[in-house]
Amino acid sequence: MFDNIRWLIPTSKKTLPCGEESEIVVSSRIRVARNLNSIPFEVKMKASDAEYLIGLVKSIINERLAGEFLSLKDLKPLEKESLLECHLVSPGFIRKDKPASVFINEGGNVSVMVNEEDHLRYQGISCGLNLVNLSGAVFEVEEMIGDNVDYAFNDAYGYLTSCPTNIGTGMRASVFMHLPGLVFTNEVEKVLKGALQIGMAVRGIYGEGSEIRGSLFQISNQHTIGFREEDLLERTTKLAKMIIDIEKKARDVILTKARNEFEDKIFRSLAILRSARTISSGEVLNLLSAVRFGIGVGIVKEITLATLNEILVVSRPANIQLFFGELLEEQERDIKRAEYIRQKLGVN
Amino acid sequence: MFDNIRWLIPTSKKTLPCGEESEIVVSSRIRVARNLNSIPFEVKMKASDAEYLIGLVKSIINERLAGEFLSLKDLKPLEKESLLECHLVSPGFIRKDKPASVFINEGGNVSVMVNEEDHLRYQGISCGLNLVNLSGAVFEVEEMIGDNVDYAFNDAYGYLTSCPTNIGTGMRASVFMHLPGLVFTNEVEKVLKGALQIGMAVRGIYGEGSEIRGSLFQISNQHTIGFREEDLLERTTKLAKMIIDIEKKARDVILTKARNEFEDKIFRSLAILRSARTISSGEVLNLLSAVRFGIGVGIVKEITLATLNEILVVSRPANIQLFFGELLEEQERDIKRAEYIRQKLGVN
Repeated sequence: MFDNIRWLIPTSKKTLPCGEESEIVVSSRIRVARNLNSIPFEVKMKASDAEYLIGLVKSIINERLAGEFLSLKDLKPLEKESLLECHLVSPGFIRKDKPASVFINEGGNVSVMVNEEDHLRYQGISCGLNLVNLSGAVFEVEEMIGDNVDYAFNDAYGYLTSCPTNIGTGMRASVFMHLPGLVFTNEVEKVLKGALQIGMAVRGIYGEGSEIRGSLFQISNQHTIGFREEDLLERTTKLAKMIIDIEKKARDVILTKARNEFEDKIFRSLAILRSARTISSGEVLNLLSAVRFGIGVGIVKEITLATLNEILVVSRPANIQLFFGELLEEQERDIKRAEYIRQKLGVN
Repeated sequence: MFDNIRWLIPTSKKTLPCGEESEIVVSSRIRVARNLNSIPFEVKMKASDAEYLIGLVKSIINERLAGEFLSLKDLKPLEKESLLECHLVSPGFIRKDKPASVFINEGGNVSVMVNEEDHLRYQGISCGLNLVNLSGAVFEVEEMIGDNVDYAFNDAYGYLTSCPTNIGTGMRASVFMHLPGLVFTNEVEKVLKGALQIGMAVRGIYGEGSEIRGSLFQISNQHTIGFREEDLLERTTKLAKMIIDIEKKARDVILTKARNEFEDKIFRSLAILRSARTISSGEVLNLLSAVRFGIGVGIVKEITLATLNEILVVSRPANIQLFFGELLEEQERDIKRAEYIRQKLGVN
């Protein structure tokens, strides 16, 4: 039914190599908002403007870049969810009723949404702490299109955007960090408050209810105006590195004070992932968190972070259906997810 | 510190072979209460009477039966707890302050408490449904001593006991059953009520609080008077077989209606037992319950019930300390218990 899993597990090798500290930094992401002078901004945009823009961007990209264009209206609901789970589109994008399209490059790590909140939203994703390299890949596409269109730009403010919070650089750089050490030592709150004070936004990745799933946290630049892109990337990278240092110290504390408890958690988690016959995506997130920690501190040696990262993405509700190429009810999904994970980690 | 684990894992082969239906019946137990005419009953007994009785029983047994006498006052607290966990003595026995002793036969499956609530309490334990064979072993010892002493007996009532609830045969036959099927189909209550109506006592094996641990239930004869021993054993065995039949049907229902859910539970439980680095005895009971079910329905093939039964006994709080030969705090105990279980089940 769905033979298309090319954005789920890109076969192309043309992606960036993984960034630094990938046992703590799950992924780095960048998105850049741009609008064109020649077309009304989103609130005033007509369907014909939207169609025109899609055609224009398509013609520019098609000649210059390998990858594929997906038209929102042609996508099945499951495919939309999958693109969202892969962070290639935004929640706002898949809810659009005006014509919209997304371009995904060959490596599956850079995408361009056309007619999201802004005319153009460039997005990039990489594993590990990799903002500088990633920004290179994203701005290469941004500039390539910029050479052929006239971006809305104001000398005082910078790039103009639909929402004033994005004005200036139009750029948001995020780092997704796995911080079980800080959770254990109860330092999360302190660290996150400190980040807020220096103008960074931080949030836990929440699951159902308010529980923080898998000790995952996101830091990103709060302000887009008044800084150069390079400064924002540097500040975000610097903060990430600072948090990584504190996390590493916290991990040492764990290994001294609660080694048994954590070893137990790590080995049980891995055992459950390898043995479960039915498993929810929420539970997978928590178990992977423990295993990632185990890899980070050298207790788990036979599994790579790449395998873990793949499981993290493929086991999401829509992705697991695309992976097996069929629509699955929740119960079947949990069974297939368990099957996929057992296969990836070595069946017990 | 404790080199004595002979009652924990008897090396002698002189035990009964396991009884029937051992995947559902964890164990069969019999205890028989007897008193002597020549000595005041427990409430009026002096320490000197108690000492005399111990000496008398010892002299009778020593000449005729291989095994060992343990004097209550010589036992360390941990050893008392261990004997209790092995069902070789009763909770009342280890709390006695009058002189008391216990004889344990070579096979570790028959014991004689001297000066518990009654002068003599014969106890026997076997795996599987095995009341008839087990009663043979217990009454052999009861008769051997009876040939040398004068049991308190009344033609109208039968054997006289300290507590009127034991008068008559003085015998209580119990069967410990593992009934996850009935728990799943919500038939436990119905079955247990039916048992009560035909004069049998039934209770769940409770853990902390009121949760039923590991789907384990005990059925035993409620009345000891007005029946012959053979009748009581037959009635108890018959009820056990009836419950086994219902349990087997319930297991078929599970395998039809909730196979995935139960397979999941079974494989996860086995995986946790094989991987945990710290584990409580309560959790072990629950996990073993799932694995026992897995063996019973043929899903788990590589583990024997004998291994499971050994883990069930050895992983109890006092036994695990005797097994490792050292006094252990709760935390250390949980770690050592996990180590022992990994070793028994094959480390992952």
